[in-house]
Amino acid sequence: MTEWMLSKVGWQPPDSSGVLVHGGSLANLTALLAARARAFPSAWEQGTPAEAVILVPAGTHVSVARAASILGLGSRAVHPLPCDDLGRTRGERVAEAIELQHRAGRRVMAVIANACAPTTGLYDPLEAMATACRDKRVWLHVDAAHGGSALLVPELRTLLRGIEQADSVTWDAHKMLRTSTLAAAVLIRRSEDLHHALRQSADYLFFNDARTGPDLMHCTVEGSKAELGLKIFLNLAWRGEQGLAAYVHGRHQAARTLWRMVSARNTFEALSEPESNLVCFRYADGNDPHSEVRHIAIRDRLMGQGTFHLASSLVRNRRWWRATVMSPASDQAIFTQLLDTLEIAYQEASY
Amino acid sequence: MTEWMLSKVGWQPPDSSGVLVHGGSLANLTALLAARARAFPSAWEQGTPAEAVILVPAGTHVSVARAASILGLGSRAVHPLPCDDLGRTRGERVAEAIELQHRAGRRVMAVIANACAPTTGLYDPLEAMATACRDKRVWLHVDAAHGGSALLVPELRTLLRGIEQADSVTWDAHKMLRTSTLAAAVLIRRSEDLHHALRQSADYLFFNDARTGPDLMHCTVEGSKAELGLKIFLNLAWRGEQGLAAYVHGRHQAARTLWRMVSARNTFEALSEPESNLVCFRYADGNDPHSEVRHIAIRDRLMGQGTFHLASSLVRNRRWWRATVMSPASDQAIFTQLLDTLEIAYQEASY
Repeated sequence: MTEWMLSKVGWQPPDSSGVLVHGGSLANLTALLAARARAFPSAWEQGTPAEAVILVPAGTHVSVARAASILGLGSRAVHPLPCDDLGRTRGERVAEAIELQHRAGRRVMAVIANACAPTTGLYDPLEAMATACRDKRVWLHVDAAHGGSALLVPELRTLLRGIEQADSVTWDAHKMLRTSTLAAAVLIRRSEDLHHALRQSADYLFFNDARTGPDLMHCTVEGSKAELGLKIFLNLAWRGEQGLAAYVHGRHQAARTLWRMVSARNTFEALSEPESNLVCFRYADGNDPHSEVRHIAIRDRLMGQGTFHLASSLVRNRRWWRATVMSPASDQAIFTQLLDTLEIAYQEASY
Repeated sequence: MTEWMLSKVGWQPPDSSGVLVHGGSLANLTALLAARARAFPSAWEQGTPAEAVILVPAGTHVSVARAASILGLGSRAVHPLPCDDLGRTRGERVAEAIELQHRAGRRVMAVIANACAPTTGLYDPLEAMATACRDKRVWLHVDAAHGGSALLVPELRTLLRGIEQADSVTWDAHKMLRTSTLAAAVLIRRSEDLHHALRQSADYLFFNDARTGPDLMHCTVEGSKAELGLKIFLNLAWRGEQGLAAYVHGRHQAARTLWRMVSARNTFEALSEPESNLVCFRYADGNDPHSEVRHIAIRDRLMGQGTFHLASSLVRNRRWWRATVMSPASDQAIFTQLLDTLEIAYQEASY
């Protein structure tokens, strides 16, 4: 399965390698382990050096900062990349951001790019970021946990242009490849970087050599594994690559429909034109001082009723509802119902 | 499910807490994260300090040293505990070992105890180790991944005496609780230590507060989870606690049968009387200079034939076959077949 996923990124075994892990958090952790091994080959034996830092865009998934703390860098080592007001990395300023860290005596272990950002559904400019990272010899990790599946859709692939120049990619099968939770891939451009991520004792490797077939146990944080590839494969075999691509494309189009419907009502405002199946919008409540509380309370009420499951994001210092258009059944009629429900809830809100 | 497992250790919620994770490696990693947070409360923000070390018995599972490297301590921070020649910790010397590290300017973040050791199936003296750790205010982690299930059997529970004085316990359900791979528990005596293991941003916690029911997502390395508790529960519901206990006890007794059969043949030698369902033995080949190679080659040949799946351990500088008596079908007839096969293979060996 990882070979198929590698090929979608534009990579081929044996030059490139991937492993399946239990979720995007472990995939990001594994990618950062590989990045740490590249930047600091002695870290596995000597510990994480104090000068190690990572650069992340606004709206990066919480698991990236968690990984930095788990790996011994500490949360203080997570520095922000220059972003526009929608939280997208300003690609032309990445080289300068790296330079700034290096001049301060720190060492950038990895730059993170979001494809797409879990908070907004918007894609970072991968090509510009990859160029900057290559020039500065810094590891580029693309967190495509949610948005990697757009690689299957010719019309959407352009959003991920440059991903093949990254060093590592996280891609969750349980997000848009219709696979049950958890099943994520961490894909690494240079195979040796994956093999260096987690080193083993000689005794262990000895036995590994004696085994037949590929055995990537020494490349995973988990050690023993469940049969993650099988459930991804069964979905692919049943629906076909075109079937999965049609699903992904269809959900992107449905998200655009929701966005157009939001924009057509003056009771709502949308954060931006969606690039994925995530749509951020809010009630157009002007300067309502209770805006934050109301948006959250309404989200919780809908969740409690079991009618609609909205997430929420904080962007431009404001609270947005975030709709993830996943279900094949979500259509215009359901979106109308959602927007009507939200309008009434907001107008009735007494909190 | 974790509440049931906690109660078997001798702990109760809400004072104690546990989470299910994808395997013993992640359970050990999580326990060491909690230990790091206790010893170095600022590590999450400031990074892992260079003076952090852990003390481990011989034959500790490879995932413990891996966790030390992942967490930024480095493999140099993994120091051996004084052990007897079977690799069991000498409980009376643990306090002194801790003291030695502290006098050298290092800080012991955790002491590891094996219950049982994956290499030999023998149990460390938990009570003596717990006393030493309490006196020295050092975290005691018991890796009971394999051997924790003996807690269900009154006749075997004594092997784990003192486990309730530990700070954390790893217990795999997919080893002896008849649950499919992967399903492991990390159990923590003081709930607050689990909650400090992985800290979250305020924004994240805010939403957590709004949820109904227990949500331990912020206490797991994985983040989103699969329904691990369900598969443990279904086994427990179907077989009953007594059914599982009878299975564990039965496999221990079968292992003793194998050990007696090994001891009765002068062609074999056993490492020691087994304390679990692991039996280490070897061909009594005296000073055969090819002993190591032959033991491994025979193991690989049986594996290749698909007849018997033996593991192997290096103890007292010699290679031992390690039989894990798991299958309810393994009985005296099968053990006879195993020993006959090994005898013939060794006598025919030309390598």
